Amino acid sequence: LTGGRLLSVRRALHALNPAELASLLESLPPRHRRLVWNMVERDDEGEVLLHLGEEVRAGLMREMDVKELVAAAGDLDIDDLADLIEHLPESVTQQVVKALDTQDRARLERVLAYEADSAGGLMNTDAVTVRGDVTLDVVQRYLRLRGELPPHTDALFVVDRQGHYRGVLTLERVLTRDAETLVSAVMDEERTALPATLAAERVAQHFEDADLLSAAVIDEQGLLLGRITVDDVLDVIRKDAERKLMSLAGLTEDEDIFAPVRGATRRRAIWLGINLLTAFLASSVVDLFQGTISQVVALAVLMPIVASMGGIGGSQTLTLMIRGLALGQIGSGNTRFLLRKELLVAAINGLLWALVVGAVALLWFKSWPLALVVGLAIVINQTIAALAGIFVPLTLKRMGIDPALAGSVILTTFTDVCGFFSLLALGTLILL
Amino acid sequence: LTGGRLLSVRRALHALNPAELASLLESLPPRHRRLVWNMVERDDEGEVLLHLGEEVRAGLMREMDVKELVAAAGDLDIDDLADLIEHLPESVTQQVVKALDTQDRARLERVLAYEADSAGGLMNTDAVTVRGDVTLDVVQRYLRLRGELPPHTDALFVVDRQGHYRGVLTLERVLTRDAETLVSAVMDEERTALPATLAAERVAQHFEDADLLSAAVIDEQGLLLGRITVDDVLDVIRKDAERKLMSLAGLTEDEDIFAPVRGATRRRAIWLGINLLTAFLASSVVDLFQGTISQVVALAVLMPIVASMGGIGGSQTLTLMIRGLALGQIGSGNTRFLLRKELLVAAINGLLWALVVGAVALLWFKSWPLALVVGLAIVINQTIAALAGIFVPLTLKRMGIDPALAGSVILTTFTDVCGFFSLLALGTLILL
Repeated sequence: LTGGRLLSVRRALHALNPAELASLLESLPPRHRRLVWNMVERDDEGEVLLHLGEEVRAGLMREMDVKELVAAAGDLDIDDLADLIEHLPESVTQQVVKALDTQDRARLERVLAYEADSAGGLMNTDAVTVRGDVTLDVVQRYLRLRGELPPHTDALFVVDRQGHYRGVLTLERVLTRDAETLVSAVMDEERTALPATLAAERVAQHFEDADLLSAAVIDEQGLLLGRITVDDVLDVIRKDAERKLMSLAGLTEDEDIFAPVRGATRRRAIWLGINLLTAFLASSVVDLFQGTISQVVALAVLMPIVASMGGIGGSQTLTLMIRGLALGQIGSGNTRFLLRKELLVAAINGLLWALVVGAVALLWFKSWPLALVVGLAIVINQTIAALAGIFVPLTLKRMGIDPALAGSVILTTFTDVCGFFSLLALGTLILL
Repeated sequence: LTGGRLLSVRRALHALNPAELASLLESLPPRHRRLVWNMVERDDEGEVLLHLGEEVRAGLMREMDVKELVAAAGDLDIDDLADLIEHLPESVTQQVVKALDTQDRARLERVLAYEADSAGGLMNTDAVTVRGDVTLDVVQRYLRLRGELPPHTDALFVVDRQGHYRGVLTLERVLTRDAETLVSAVMDEERTALPATLAAERVAQHFEDADLLSAAVIDEQGLLLGRITVDDVLDVIRKDAERKLMSLAGLTEDEDIFAPVRGATRRRAIWLGINLLTAFLASSVVDLFQGTISQVVALAVLMPIVASMGGIGGSQTLTLMIRGLALGQIGSGNTRFLLRKELLVAAINGLLWALVVGAVALLWFKSWPLALVVGLAIVINQTIAALAGIFVPLTLKRMGIDPALAGSVILTTFTDVCGFFSLLALGTLILL
């Protein structure tokens, strides 16, 4: 990059907003990443850091000195600062907190008091409040005096003298209703406030169901603590979806696609190791039947078919269950119905494909008994796959483990082990 | 359900909003679903239908007569009606359209002119517009006269005399700026409007990057057509995420977990059939080496290990690529960097686990040559898996096929075939 091109790159960068800058940085290999990072304007640094995946962020922060980090963090809103602060080194945190005024420090503590993935952790503390016993005209005069409202303000929150949440007053009502009306007469009291301890995914569900732009967050006493805006919810939904997809391959949603080889190798090795253990389990089943295989080698040829069909069938059930559990569609009331349905689907498909594979095996190896063995093995394995597809996620959920994370490995272990066993055991019984 | 309980169920149902009713219906087996559906209030029926997955919706609509359908559809907003209309029988559509007034019919046509998954298909036509040459005071008086604003209105759109989009006037500015100011002086001209043909996922990306609550939609001439609100974007993101997860198992995002057995069996049979073809491919590789296996049965025992380790390693690379492609992080500029990185990660992990598996094989079968064979096969297969993990999604993308849908099947075919081949071919060369 020569002087002139550098200048035009710099100009192009300044046209981007922090979220776009963050996604640009994530698309660059480490060397170029550092170059571009140095061109980001000081004022934007904090927000860009916030939008980066954990791994990329840690990489960039490792090369900033304390002064730079303090400056970047100092430019953030309190709720954003609360998100970033857990990733900052102790010394930086202390300096940043010291630089806040008393009010901001109190706000920061309020947000940090809750888990990051709860309503309290998501909230902003910049809610604008009004009292119910004033007229809309007073509200208007107050707003004009106050000047600019916090970003994404679609509504004000109505509180009583003690700060208890009473309802929501949308800007739309302030603008369209008669100026002499009392706030209490036009506020929306039906809009429920969210308890600060509510889990982030429940918050997202609530926003989606009720089509909200913002919602109040309250403590156990009903005191208004802050508000959550829909842009925070968007992040929750996106992250949640990414986590589900990535965890199927044993990765985390923060995995940087351009991560240094060392870290990436180590993280992935763990997942490969876990899978190796389950693969050894399947192998040891095959090992039991070495005698059978050496006499009927065709069984070794058919092994991958039985196992893979079981894996696919089981995954279909598992995926439906994972989605159903995430959406809260599955309870004790309908498990039995589901089980019957999935078993029936698996049995019918098992029979169908058993006939197909059996026919192919007959043509291939010219053996009726072998065709019977592989057909039976497929029916048995598809049925077991459906059972595993239902019970593995239910059991994991009951144990407090995310079915999306571990479900797939456990399921394929089941279908491999049972597939090999049913094929080889039936082969031993019928063919020898 | 006796009379008394029915009444309390009915009361509980009336407390739910349409989105919640829809997710309740989706959680019920078909018989109970019909019972609850009959208890849904007439006014809500249209909106509930809209929130249901395609399959559940079709099931319920099959049992409604034309009159009921016309009534349900008639209660919807124009943009919602546009979403539903493609799922209605021809006769119902005609009656619904006939019942609309001229203005609404024109609006409906405007929305239907665009693909459902484009900005034009997502938009609502209820944008409230103002002119730039009036004062905020005039805007306020207009709004008070007009009364209630469309749901999720956080901003008005500024247009010129011909209806060309000029900028955005947030309600916040109307309320906080001096009443004598001209609209043109306080409107946000920087907020870009979205072309009606923009793909839905790009719309979502734009909303996330710029943290928007609403955005204008314009045609090629810059005329304002309507607006998109963030709640529509939320739906896009959620659906997209679900589609990715479900398609990994060959399911669609609309698959009803309580679907009748017949339909579910048929749909899943297709995916099982596709996978059977790829499984036969892997089997035929094993078939080539029947002679080798009958002499060294231990190879059949080790087959599943080599194949499954390759599948896992390849999936890790594939998942990173699918996410990177979806986020637009991957271009021709960094493919080479990625390839080198993934190959290196795969080679190191391949060597590591080759040593482990080799050692286990040595202890198990007491054969140095066998340990060497399985170790080499693992290194080769992990490397091929990484290559496939990079090139399969890139090729699919270039062919216009969604890598999330087909990537996984093709990848595991590669890793199975190459895993079996490398193990058995090396076994033939070294052990026989």
